[in-house]
Amino acid sequence: MFPAVEGVAPAVTAVFTAVLTEGPISRVALARRLGLSSAAVTKAARPLIEAGYLEELAATERTGPGAGRPASPLAVCADREFFVGVKITGDELIGVVCDLRAQVRTSAHRRLAGAGVDHVLTELDELVDDLLDGFDRGRARFLGLAVSGDVDHSTGLVRYSPFLRWRDVPLAERAEKVTGLRVTVENDVKALTTAEQWFGEGVGADSFALVTVGAGIGCGLVVNGRIVSGAHGVAGEIGHIGFDVDGPDCHCGSRGCVEAVAGADAIVSRARAITGRPELTFDDAVSLARAGDAPVDAAFARAGTAIGAGIAAVANLVGPARIVVSGEGLSAYDLFEPHIRASFQRQAFGAAAACPLSIRPLPFEEWARGAATVSIQALVAS
Amino acid sequence: MFPAVEGVAPAVTAVFTAVLTEGPISRVALARRLGLSSAAVTKAARPLIEAGYLEELAATERTGPGAGRPASPLAVCADREFFVGVKITGDELIGVVCDLRAQVRTSAHRRLAGAGVDHVLTELDELVDDLLDGFDRGRARFLGLAVSGDVDHSTGLVRYSPFLRWRDVPLAERAEKVTGLRVTVENDVKALTTAEQWFGEGVGADSFALVTVGAGIGCGLVVNGRIVSGAHGVAGEIGHIGFDVDGPDCHCGSRGCVEAVAGADAIVSRARAITGRPELTFDDAVSLARAGDAPVDAAFARAGTAIGAGIAAVANLVGPARIVVSGEGLSAYDLFEPHIRASFQRQAFGAAAACPLSIRPLPFEEWARGAATVSIQALVAS
Ligand SMILES: [Zn+2]
Ligand SMILES: [Zn+2]
Repeated sequence: MFPAVEGVAPAVTAVFTAVLTEGPISRVALARRLGLSSAAVTKAARPLIEAGYLEELAATERTGPGAGRPASPLAVCADREFFVGVKITGDELIGVVCDLRAQVRTSAHRRLAGAGVDHVLTELDELVDDLLDGFDRGRARFLGLAVSGDVDHSTGLVRYSPFLRWRDVPLAERAEKVTGLRVTVENDVKALTTAEQWFGEGVGADSFALVTVGAGIGCGLVVNGRIVSGAHGVAGEIGHIGFDVDGPDCHCGSRGCVEAVAGADAIVSRARAITGRPELTFDDAVSLARAGDAPVDAAFARAGTAIGAGIAAVANLVGPARIVVSGEGLSAYDLFEPHIRASFQRQAFGAAAACPLSIRPLPFEEWARGAATVSIQALVAS
Repeated sequence: MFPAVEGVAPAVTAVFTAVLTEGPISRVALARRLGLSSAAVTKAARPLIEAGYLEELAATERTGPGAGRPASPLAVCADREFFVGVKITGDELIGVVCDLRAQVRTSAHRRLAGAGVDHVLTELDELVDDLLDGFDRGRARFLGLAVSGDVDHSTGLVRYSPFLRWRDVPLAERAEKVTGLRVTVENDVKALTTAEQWFGEGVGADSFALVTVGAGIGCGLVVNGRIVSGAHGVAGEIGHIGFDVDGPDCHCGSRGCVEAVAGADAIVSRARAITGRPELTFDDAVSLARAGDAPVDAAFARAGTAIGAGIAAVANLVGPARIVVSGEGLSAYDLFEPHIRASFQRQAFGAAAACPLSIRPLPFEEWARGAATVSIQALVAS
């Protein structure tokens, strides 16, 4: 798929990855960064330039970080290849097309009548067609899919997705047949973490964490430069760290977990109990809290406190360089944020409190962009 | 220090490390394991054999894992080099001499009159002399020191050790002057983790965790094959994960932390409050609980529950292949263990509960062996 050069494949991948995530960057800076000789960098870059993935910028245009004298930095040709990314939820497909720099070029949504696999695949095919309308199909060969739950990235198998009620669906294989694209499947939180690691706040960080707040509370972790997957298939389950040993029951079978206090359902349940209004929605609860309803506001405060304690556990245990907190739950950002920060500061141990927290809402398309990023990674690895 | 061979130094280190931690192992298996050619393995092994660090076993003696036909496996010459390891506590020095396979060959203790740096160094020098009596000094050139607290391993500086009340002590430099040995300094929990990673239950595991239970509750973590140090200098602080949001105050400024419930002081305080006997010691509390005092037993049960929840947080977040729980607090093993396991099972999420827990008492010399292991690592890296 990628230019094959006998014997220098690891260098080609390393050079391309570095330019992709940190470029434009001069050959000198690249050599220093990768511990390669300048000759090795030049040799590795040549086939990438010839195949149109990299280009040499004019020397005056911009010099790479660390370049001591005028140089012609290498940059990625963003339009060389396009990537479709789709997040599959229980009631909607959200899709984007990204270029090679993971910039979103177009996006589209598609409602689902249900989450049956056949129906989802039919809708997926139409969504992909819509998205790629106007793109050169020869340059849009990759599709990344993001699904919540237990996903085997290497085989493209969705082992178990509770929201979709899928078990053992060979999603990559089936989606390849339907769309004709090369398909990569990843857990949604991991896909989003990959996007941050390659193109976001995680660039250059040996470790960082991405915490997602919404129906569930999830966490993607990068430690020692690699995403943490867990030896037993579980990692990043910040939602099931204990927060209040005497707290409400959690669907996991324990009680007082972060998610049992701070998940969207938990907040709605609490707001319903407080107000005595069983029809109350999450948005209603947000409105009430913003309008000054102190007990409902306290439910958000407690949720923020639980999230902050969970984040502090991440900082205390693995000490990431920085932590990003995001997710659709952060549409109620204003209600959570001060409590997340205060709780984090209280529970973070010593210098762990110095870990910068970025707390920001997450456009829903970001999930699809994460899926596209995973397919960019698939190109680079191929 | 180590045989210097132009151009093959990384291969020499890789071969030596693999034989040290996984040997005896055949050249064929080594080549496969390290992704090197057989010729490269043979070339890297030659200077190590010539310098007496490695030896070739007779072909019939034992074949390495994965060796398909009779081969002469490579093994470490345990007696080629000896390593002194000393754990420094506030009132005692505990020392061992280990061979190159981290087997303890002799040990000695020395009481301290206080934790002043000059006094500690004087006593350390005498302890080292005692320990090395009868050893060939030419083959015992390394000293590893383990200290609790914030230690800069790369410079040998003890930044802050609360138990010793040391701040910014250039311990490696001062101990080298006094003993004439090459000194490595490491945080005690990290040293113990290194010992497990190289010579214990962590061998061959891409990830594992070591949890220590005693005055404090600590944790060493290996993720993606490397010890986790924390970008801000803090990692493994399992003791300050929140357990009970309404629990007792913790010395860290928060409340209800694992350590505030399960640290030795916390258990003693609780036992004193329960019995109304302010002079009660930890050992007294253990005796009472073993004699059937239900409220005191419940204090240990609650401590075990807090430790289990902390361990589950480790499993949920980073998913290590296995977890070892040890430490001097586990002299009361019988009182903790069932509660640690039950709480872990309850709080571990899904497949994280499959993570094997080894719960075992820790001979105090193990800390000193950990320090010696760190100096073995210093030899290998040199
Ligand atoms: Zn839970
Ligand atoms: Zn604490």
